[in-house]
Amino acid sequence: MTSITDWMTDPAYDILRSERQALKSFFEPQSIAIIGASESPGSVGKTLLRNLLQNPFGGTVFPVNPKRNSVMGVKAYPSLADIPDTVDLAVIATPAATVPGLVRECVAAGVKSAIILSAGFKEIGAQGIALEQQILAEARQNGLRIIGPNCLGLMNPHSGLNATFASAMARPGNVGFISQSGALCTSILDWSFRENVGFSAFISIGSMLDVGWGDLIYYLGDDPHTQSIVIYMESIGDARSFLSAAREVAFAKPIIVIKAGRTEAAAKASASHTGAMTGSDDVLNAAFRRCGVLRVTRISELFNMAEVLAKQPRPKGPRLTIVTNAGGPGVLATDMLVTTGGELATLSPETTERLNEVLPPFWSHGNPVDILGDATPERYLKTVDVVLKDPNSDGALVILTPQAMTEPTQIAEELKSYLEQNPQTERSPKPILASWMGGADILAGEAILNSTSIPTYAYPDSAARVFNYMWQSSYNLLALYETPSLADDADGSPDREAVTAILDGARAGGRTLLTETESKQVLTAYHCPRCKP
Amino acid sequence: MTSITDWMTDPAYDILRSERQALKSFFEPQSIAIIGASESPGSVGKTLLRNLLQNPFGGTVFPVNPKRNSVMGVKAYPSLADIPDTVDLAVIATPAATVPGLVRECVAAGVKSAIILSAGFKEIGAQGIALEQQILAEARQNGLRIIGPNCLGLMNPHSGLNATFASAMARPGNVGFISQSGALCTSILDWSFRENVGFSAFISIGSMLDVGWGDLIYYLGDDPHTQSIVIYMESIGDARSFLSAAREVAFAKPIIVIKAGRTEAAAKASASHTGAMTGSDDVLNAAFRRCGVLRVTRISELFNMAEVLAKQPRPKGPRLTIVTNAGGPGVLATDMLVTTGGELATLSPETTERLNEVLPPFWSHGNPVDILGDATPERYLKTVDVVLKDPNSDGALVILTPQAMTEPTQIAEELKSYLEQNPQTERSPKPILASWMGGADILAGEAILNSTSIPTYAYPDSAARVFNYMWQSSYNLLALYETPSLADDADGSPDREAVTAILDGARAGGRTLLTETESKQVLTAYHCPRCKP
Repeated sequence: MTSITDWMTDPAYDILRSERQALKSFFEPQSIAIIGASESPGSVGKTLLRNLLQNPFGGTVFPVNPKRNSVMGVKAYPSLADIPDTVDLAVIATPAATVPGLVRECVAAGVKSAIILSAGFKEIGAQGIALEQQILAEARQNGLRIIGPNCLGLMNPHSGLNATFASAMARPGNVGFISQSGALCTSILDWSFRENVGFSAFISIGSMLDVGWGDLIYYLGDDPHTQSIVIYMESIGDARSFLSAAREVAFAKPIIVIKAGRTEAAAKASASHTGAMTGSDDVLNAAFRRCGVLRVTRISELFNMAEVLAKQPRPKGPRLTIVTNAGGPGVLATDMLVTTGGELATLSPETTERLNEVLPPFWSHGNPVDILGDATPERYLKTVDVVLKDPNSDGALVILTPQAMTEPTQIAEELKSYLEQNPQTERSPKPILASWMGGADILAGEAILNSTSIPTYAYPDSAARVFNYMWQSSYNLLALYETPSLADDADGSPDREAVTAILDGARAGGRTLLTETESKQVLTAYHCPRCKP
Repeated sequence: MTSITDWMTDPAYDILRSERQALKSFFEPQSIAIIGASESPGSVGKTLLRNLLQNPFGGTVFPVNPKRNSVMGVKAYPSLADIPDTVDLAVIATPAATVPGLVRECVAAGVKSAIILSAGFKEIGAQGIALEQQILAEARQNGLRIIGPNCLGLMNPHSGLNATFASAMARPGNVGFISQSGALCTSILDWSFRENVGFSAFISIGSMLDVGWGDLIYYLGDDPHTQSIVIYMESIGDARSFLSAAREVAFAKPIIVIKAGRTEAAAKASASHTGAMTGSDDVLNAAFRRCGVLRVTRISELFNMAEVLAKQPRPKGPRLTIVTNAGGPGVLATDMLVTTGGELATLSPETTERLNEVLPPFWSHGNPVDILGDATPERYLKTVDVVLKDPNSDGALVILTPQAMTEPTQIAEELKSYLEQNPQTERSPKPILASWMGGADILAGEAILNSTSIPTYAYPDSAARVFNYMWQSSYNLLALYETPSLADDADGSPDREAVTAILDGARAGGRTLLTETESKQVLTAYHCPRCKP
C-alpha cells in the first residue's frame, strides 16, 4: 500500500524536487534579459524595464534591442547571443510572430527560464495555436521553462524583483498569489495596498503553455516566505498536475481558489475570453474537496480566508460557540452560521455550571452565550476561557457591541494577555474569531486583536461565515487522509490493461465519449459495485 | 372593486392620517420631561439629559427628580404635575415597578407621548407582563402613545433631537432606521460615521408594548426627510399592522428588512433574548414579498440596499448587461448574477451591430461586453449608451480594472456628463451600477461616480448581487399590483359569514388550529379551486 508520505522517500521524489528547483530561476534570477526593451511611451518594454530598474533585486538586467545601443541609460545588446553573462531569465515582450525564433535563441544561449508577456496566441485562433506549438517544440530542446504567454509577468516582493508591466510593486508578505487574469492582477495589487495585504510571490500565469498550476503550487509549497496560496482560476488546464500538487501542499499551507465560471452563463463568457474550455463545475468542486483546496465564491473572501487560515488553527468540527454582550448580533451570527453549514455548539452541563459561577443570573443559559450589556473585561475573559475548554465546542466567536458600560479596548487587551498566557499549543487548539462592532469607538480594540492574530470582522455574520469556511477547509483536509487505496481493494488490483484497451479503442475510432457498455466495463475494471456490464 | 388607491379617499383614511400625526410628538416635541433625570455617573438618566442638552432641538427640557432642585444646571421638578408648561413627550428612565404610576401621571398631565427606556418587563416573566398590562391600561385612558419599554430611545437628526442614552448623535440624512435591538443601534450608529450614512430618524423600538412597526412605517412614509426605511427585526409582533403599513409605504419608499432568526437555532436564541416568539420563517418571507418589502440576509447589505434603492431606478426585469475592460471580473460578476437569481441580457441584433461600429473587432461579441484592456473613455461611453438602449436589457454594470492604458478618473467624468445630459426621465430609466476595481488608482473616479448617484462596489460580484436585490425589490412591488381582488371573483363574493362562524366555533372550543374539514370549508368559502370539502 502506498501512503501519502511513503512516496516522499521514493527516488522519483528527488527528481521531482530538482524539477521544482528549476522554477527558482523565475523567482531568484541573477541575470535577466529584457527582449523588446524600449523607450516608447506606454509600451510594455518600457514599463517592464523601468520596473526592474526601480526595484533592485540583486541581479543584472540586460536590455535586448537590435536598434539601440542603450535603453533608459542601460547598455543594450542586439541579441541574446551578444550578452556577455549567463542569462537565468528572459522576459519577452515582442510581437507573437517573433517569439518562436526568440525562444530558439534562448535555448541556444542556455537561458533557464522565460516569461512571455506577448499576446496573440491561442486566444486568436489556429494561427496562434501553431505559434504556441513551435514555441513548445523549441523550448523542449533543452528543458527551457516558460511562463505565459499573454501574462503580466511575476513579482518576488521579498527580493524586490518586479518582472511585470504593472504600475506598482506588491508589498512583501506571506501570500503566494497566482492569477489567470492579468487585469485582475492589477486590481488586486491596487486593492492590496488599501487592505495592507503582503505577498511572497505575485504571479500572472497567462495561458499556461508550459508552467502551470502544479509547478507553481509545488514551488510555493517549498517557498519559506509563503504561508498560504491564493488562486484566481478561469480554467484548470492540466487537472492532474493541479490536483497532485494541491493534495501534497494543502497539508502544510492552505490553498484558496476562486474559480470563475461556476455557472453555465459565466463559463460561456469565460470561454470566449480566454479561449479555454471550463470543466464541469460539479466535478471541479468534488476534485477541490478531495485535494484539500478551499473554494470561495466572492473576491472579498479570497484574502480574508488566506489571512485567517494562516493565523488561526483550523476547527476540528462545525460547532461554534458565540460569546456576545448583545442578543441581536448573536442571533444574526447564528443565522449565517447555520445557513452556511455550521452548528451552534451545545454547551456541556459542566460548562453551563461553570458559566453560572462566573456570570450574572440573567445570562442566556445557552449558546449564543449572552453575557449581557454591562459585560466587563473580566466577564468576557472568564467566559471565553470556559467555552474554549468545552469538548463540545470547536471554536469561539467573540462579539462586542459598544454599549454604555462597555470597554472595547480593555476587553481586547485582556483577551490578548489571555492568549499570550495560554498559547494554542497548551490548550486544545481551537480558532477564535472576533467581531468588534461599530466605528470609531472600537478601532483601538480591533487593532489590538489583529496584532494578536485574532481576525476581526465588522459584522458578526461575516465572522460566522468565515468559521464555516475554516471548517470546510479542515474537512477537505480530512478527506485527504481518507482517500481509498485501490491496491488494497478486496477484489484485487484494478484491471488497468482492460481500461487502457477500451480507451485506446475509443480514441482510435476518433471518439471522445464512451458507450454505455464501455463505461460500465471501465467501472467494473475498478471494482465499482453494482456496475456489472 | 377596491383598488389600492381608492381607499385613500375613504373617510377612514382621514382618521388614520390623524392617528399618524399623533406620532409627531415623539419626533418634533416642543417640550420634553425627563423622568429619572440624574447626575449619577454612567446612569441612563444622566446620559439622556446630557444628550438632549448637547443637541438643541428647538424645544424645552424639564428634568423630573423629586430629590433635587436642579440636574446638570437645569431646574428640576418634583413631579410631572409640577411642570408649568404642557409636556409633549415624557422620557421615563426609572425602575420598572415605578413606571405604571408615572404613566398615570403622564395621562393626568395630558402628555401626548412617552418613551420608556426602563427594562425589567416582559423579558423577566410574569411579573413584568403584569406591569406592562397596568401601563397599557393607564395609557389607554386618554390615548397616550408609548415607545418601549426596554429601548434606547430615538433621534431626529434633522431637528437635533437626541432622546437616547447612546454615546453619539446620528448624522442627518435620508434613511429612517428602526431597530428592535438597542445594542445593535449603538453599533450601527458608530458604524454609520465610518460609512458616512445619515438618518432622517433613528429609533430603538424596544418591546413594542404600544407603538409598533406599522405606526412607525406610516410615520416615516409621510416624513419628507425619509427616502428609505431600514429595519432590524427580531419578531414581527402585530403582523397585520406591519404588513398593511408596508404595503402602502413600499410603493413610495423602499423598505429593507433584516430579520434575525431565519434559522431554527437562531429563532431559539432570539426567543430567549427578547421573550418574543418568532414566526415561521417561510410565512414571513412570503408576507414580505407580498407587501413589497426587501429582505436581506447580511448586515452589510442593509444600508447598501437603502442607498442604492434611494439613488437608482429599479430594474423592470432580471436581465443585466455587463460592460468591462477585462474578462475575468466580468465572469465573476456573471457567476454571482446567475447564482443569486439574475440573468445575462441577450444583446439584440441591433445592439450587436451598433457595438460592432463603435468597438474594435476583438470585442467579446456577447454579454459581458468586453471592450478590451485598452478601452478609452470614449469607448466606455459609447458602449454604455448603446447597451442602455437595448430593450432586452434591464440595467447595466460597468466594470473598470486599472490597466496600463486605463484612465479611471476620466472615464468616471465622462459617464457623469453622459448621465447629466441624459437624465433618467428622458431615456428608459434603467439602473447603472459600477465597480471601479482596485485601490489608490481608482479612488478619484469612484468618488465622481458616487457624487453622480452611481453606486460603486469594490468587487464586481458584489455589484451583481446588488442588482439582483434591486430586481427582487421591483418584483415584490409588482406583486402588490397583482393582489387578487376577491370581490371580482367569477364565483362571486367569498362567503365571509361561513368563515367567521367556523373561526368563532374553533375559538369557542379554545382551539388555535382548524381541523382538516374546517380548513377546506374556509378555502372553499374563498373559492379556492380544488378545495371542496
